[in-house]
Amino acid sequence: MIVTVTLNPALDLTYAVDALVPHETHRVSAVEARPGGKGLNVASVLHALGEPVLATGLLGGATGAQLAGMLTASGVSADFVRFDGETRRTVTIADGADATGFWEPGPTVPPGAWEAFVAHFRTLVRDETTVVVLSGSLSPGVPPDAYATLTALAFEAGARVILDSSGEALRHGLAAGPDVIKPNRDEFAALVPPDIGCPERIARVRALGAKAVIVSRGAGGLLVLTPDGDWEAMAPRILSGNPTGAGDACVAAVARGLRDGTPWPDLLADAVSVAAAAVATRTAGTVDLDTYRRLRVVATAAPLERR
Amino acid sequence: MIVTVTLNPALDLTYAVDALVPHETHRVSAVEARPGGKGLNVASVLHALGEPVLATGLLGGATGAQLAGMLTASGVSADFVRFDGETRRTVTIADGADATGFWEPGPTVPPGAWEAFVAHFRTLVRDETTVVVLSGSLSPGVPPDAYATLTALAFEAGARVILDSSGEALRHGLAAGPDVIKPNRDEFAALVPPDIGCPERIARVRALGAKAVIVSRGAGGLLVLTPDGDWEAMAPRILSGNPTGAGDACVAAVARGLRDGTPWPDLLADAVSVAAAAVATRTAGTVDLDTYRRLRVVATAAPLERR
Repeated sequence: MIVTVTLNPALDLTYAVDALVPHETHRVSAVEARPGGKGLNVASVLHALGEPVLATGLLGGATGAQLAGMLTASGVSADFVRFDGETRRTVTIADGADATGFWEPGPTVPPGAWEAFVAHFRTLVRDETTVVVLSGSLSPGVPPDAYATLTALAFEAGARVILDSSGEALRHGLAAGPDVIKPNRDEFAALVPPDIGCPERIARVRALGAKAVIVSRGAGGLLVLTPDGDWEAMAPRILSGNPTGAGDACVAAVARGLRDGTPWPDLLADAVSVAAAAVATRTAGTVDLDTYRRLRVVATAAPLERR
Repeated sequence: MIVTVTLNPALDLTYAVDALVPHETHRVSAVEARPGGKGLNVASVLHALGEPVLATGLLGGATGAQLAGMLTASGVSADFVRFDGETRRTVTIADGADATGFWEPGPTVPPGAWEAFVAHFRTLVRDETTVVVLSGSLSPGVPPDAYATLTALAFEAGARVILDSSGEALRHGLAAGPDVIKPNRDEFAALVPPDIGCPERIARVRALGAKAVIVSRGAGGLLVLTPDGDWEAMAPRILSGNPTGAGDACVAAVARGLRDGTPWPDLLADAVSVAAAAVATRTAGTVDLDTYRRLRVVATAAPLERR
């Protein structure tokens, strides 16, 4: 079983309007509401791929209850810890030209909720969990080393860990030595400056703490840096579409690959295909399975010379 | 007991942002969530004025449950009929300069929900109800003559009726002869064109169906047209502030006046004071009680010559 952890999920609302005019009132023509947050996207993509997955994390209040109901309706197994507070919303205004986003701040998680989650997680991972995916930001009230704590608990239970976060949460989490981290290009540049020389760069990657680093580079494909070698993979065709959630789709494929012990080049070719199949759909957390199957048969990864 | 009916309520969200920039992502610095919908504003103002009030109407889904919870927390008695669907939200972006609004469409109320509400309302109004306030728009799935049906039921129970709606819902509701309607200047002009001669105008007002018409004219104060005479009242001082919800505050005062059999001039002077005290606060559905008390002692209504 793959377990995804989302400590700061959101209810994602998308409003369709004709044109966004500041300081006017708009009648919204269509409302789309879906579970949001990187870990929930990962769970949703794994479910779409037919892989057993359990989503966990923290949910609060009426918005949290609404999210839990949506997960149940979508068929994704979920077992969240509830806290006294309101899970955040995001509102995206889609006006045909582009999107305008409004992100509520995450709720402050009250004392005791994090401890309750740790106890819950400890029980969950004992139960045939093979891979744990830790995704996204941490709400205020959750300690900055939360991901290190969960990584250590997952290791005790014999599971492998993928950490997909940024900033302080990532930096603290790295101390526990997760199996894979998946920064995007900017996040990777913040970890290992791109302007340093090659030997120094390799040393810095090794010193990061993670056993492998997968860098998602948008249309530039994926790069994996491992002790056994480095590879890169490009989508066979550049697809136009919605790149939001492509990174989470990539993480879903990596989780499946880790679970199955798939060799890195195969895993990377699969991940780049799943990510491209996510770009082909309008909504984060979904993949176009036809696109995935078509790309998967032609996608390959090439070894990277360490220059 | 005054009963307010809100058939299409909303969860009103206000997001504070530094500046609204179309096609960018904004981190919201503060979120305010409150019960919205004209009838809920009326109930909330009556509660603030210390008057016994019961809010009823239709609520759906998780958003409806959240609204019900907020009403309970605010101390306003509420007894809504639940339906299978989601109560709408409104999102207002406040950027310091002005407000930008996004109104979700109302949910479509499923078959049976309206009939369930009628049965519920029939029981409610039997129970010492003196005044019924019918406010706002109708969701799809609610018949256009909904307000006529409720007015007739209220009359059977011996209650008086205030109807504050517009368009089709108002036009159909007028057929049942509510005691008071409260159009704003534009809504009144749609009912009785301002460019017709005086005798024709009086005849048209009499033919409307309502026993009395209160026209809210913003800073121009209130006008009441009744079989016993016409009066107008201005706020003693023009207050700057937020005019949203001032009309609902006026309706709250009118409901109290009808209940107590207050003479029209006194009722109008009270209503203009409550409306001004609503302008003095930042949020619809609230009144500044100090402002109300100060204005109330000096506010008067003057008889209007029928020219």
